[in-house]
Amino acid sequence: MHKVIFDTDPGVDDAMALLFLHHHPQIDLLGITTVFGNATIETTTRNALYLKREWKIDAPVVRGAGETFLPNRVSHEPPKYIHGDDGLGNIGVPDDVGIHADPRLAHRFIIEAIKADPGEVTLVAVGRMTNLALALREAPEIAKLVKQVVIMGGAFEVNGNVTPAAEANIHGDPEAADVVFTADWPVVVVGLDVTMQTVMTNGQLADIRDAAGSSRARLLFDLSQFYIQFYQSRVPDGMVVHDSCACVYVVAPELFETRKGTIRVVCGGIADGQTIQKPDGRGFGPSEWDNLPSQTICTGIDAPAVLKLIHDAIVSVKED
Amino acid sequence: MHKVIFDTDPGVDDAMALLFLHHHPQIDLLGITTVFGNATIETTTRNALYLKREWKIDAPVVRGAGETFLPNRVSHEPPKYIHGDDGLGNIGVPDDVGIHADPRLAHRFIIEAIKADPGEVTLVAVGRMTNLALALREAPEIAKLVKQVVIMGGAFEVNGNVTPAAEANIHGDPEAADVVFTADWPVVVVGLDVTMQTVMTNGQLADIRDAAGSSRARLLFDLSQFYIQFYQSRVPDGMVVHDSCACVYVVAPELFETRKGTIRVVCGGIADGQTIQKPDGRGFGPSEWDNLPSQTICTGIDAPAVLKLIHDAIVSVKED
Repeated sequence: MHKVIFDTDPGVDDAMALLFLHHHPQIDLLGITTVFGNATIETTTRNALYLKREWKIDAPVVRGAGETFLPNRVSHEPPKYIHGDDGLGNIGVPDDVGIHADPRLAHRFIIEAIKADPGEVTLVAVGRMTNLALALREAPEIAKLVKQVVIMGGAFEVNGNVTPAAEANIHGDPEAADVVFTADWPVVVVGLDVTMQTVMTNGQLADIRDAAGSSRARLLFDLSQFYIQFYQSRVPDGMVVHDSCACVYVVAPELFETRKGTIRVVCGGIADGQTIQKPDGRGFGPSEWDNLPSQTICTGIDAPAVLKLIHDAIVSVKED
Repeated sequence: MHKVIFDTDPGVDDAMALLFLHHHPQIDLLGITTVFGNATIETTTRNALYLKREWKIDAPVVRGAGETFLPNRVSHEPPKYIHGDDGLGNIGVPDDVGIHADPRLAHRFIIEAIKADPGEVTLVAVGRMTNLALALREAPEIAKLVKQVVIMGGAFEVNGNVTPAAEANIHGDPEAADVVFTADWPVVVVGLDVTMQTVMTNGQLADIRDAAGSSRARLLFDLSQFYIQFYQSRVPDGMVVHDSCACVYVVAPELFETRKGTIRVVCGGIADGQTIQKPDGRGFGPSEWDNLPSQTICTGIDAPAVLKLIHDAIVSVKED
């Protein structure tokens, strides 16, 4: 079993990833920590609570950061044209979902969970890296106690998506991401290099809905339609399942090709939020990548196998 | 015929490119403008004069910039471990080669040549972009008069070589490169994405020496040995023919795959000198790449055909 804390900003593809984690038999979901990004922290937290209620998830929802790691840096508006005004594809999430978030702060929840179970907790972070950076700053000793950190974010040998240089999760809080990548804990970065290849067609999503035969899968289908509309200008009739790719890595790393090396994030300037890896074993002049921990980036993916694994996990639970 | 001004910092692979241009039957070499980079401006100019003398090149050598476009920016030591103390593989180039540079400044020579023959002059720049940026600043009208600008530099979907982010020619004067890429003239960028795939083995270089049977080709072979030694840690037994790739593009663009889009250079910070293209037709948020001229980058190369073309051109002239 993989004990997972899911750090997320739901967000449509976050919702699919959450249902995947909830249904996968080898995942023990310890908590859902929220962060701003696809929507404000109020909205992403409300959405996490809504999905917890609708999908009958036991794990607590814990509210996290609503602003960048460096409070005064340039920040950006939530992308309502991708995830909808409500962050879940304009399906009409109620303002009050009737259940409440855990009273702790997300980064303290992360610290406590890692310390309570040394070597066993995997962090899967698919939004801005703010909560993880705050946890590291407050309790640097967690670096040696966490099992693994798997993040969705960044773009290495491909363009970004927010700008030609930067991917949204990293662009939204570059300094936080640089803290996370340069810390001495094992990070796996699942970025646009592989997620943009992993497109679930609307037909495949309908198959999941029909095979599961559950209101859970119907909700997933419905809330994804707005996002699929947005992506029609970028990929043919389907959704890029960014966040689910990071979750799949936890249970099936063999479906990914990877490369090791130190990673830095460009902070400021026209490439603000760009991720750059110095591959291990390559010769360069002295640079700001030297003498830092080597981390793993994903450079290849068996996309059909990843999509099948998502399908199989979600439909494995039929009851509502 | 292609009328070419070769802007260069010889430099070992510059020397091969110069002999290629000199011998190729469809190239009319108008001038050799020098720039600092692989060595100081004194050394690169001396080396260009030495090669002009040894290889009996009619075109004038015109001395160019010895410092960056912005005079106070961070600059870097010449890479003597790649090109040798003398910039030509430590073959013992004399301090005084007995002939002198044209009295003009390189950027003025470029301006005059372009104005004298509107629509006909191709600039091939394989060092820092300083001379080209100076020419544009002094006479912006040349942008509409030049035929084409082909440059060796940059790294788009691969790492740099000086740092994980930046390639040497761009890293050496990022602001100059940004001026060149964002000007409204047609630029083709031949970067590490394709040049690193284009390795001439020492055996192939010996074949050129033997097939030409000339002292010119013997000199080329001899001055390349130090550079090949350096590259042994990076490629197996051979030399990356960076600068010749840009020259080949002029006569055989069909050997390259290309992509159009606006290009910016990161100036300052950890990614100083990185090149990033915004591919045409891709959707991004507003960025510093918007509303600029679309330029061409090379994304693929038929390396064996390029190497054969270099071989054939150099051996096509037998006499010394």
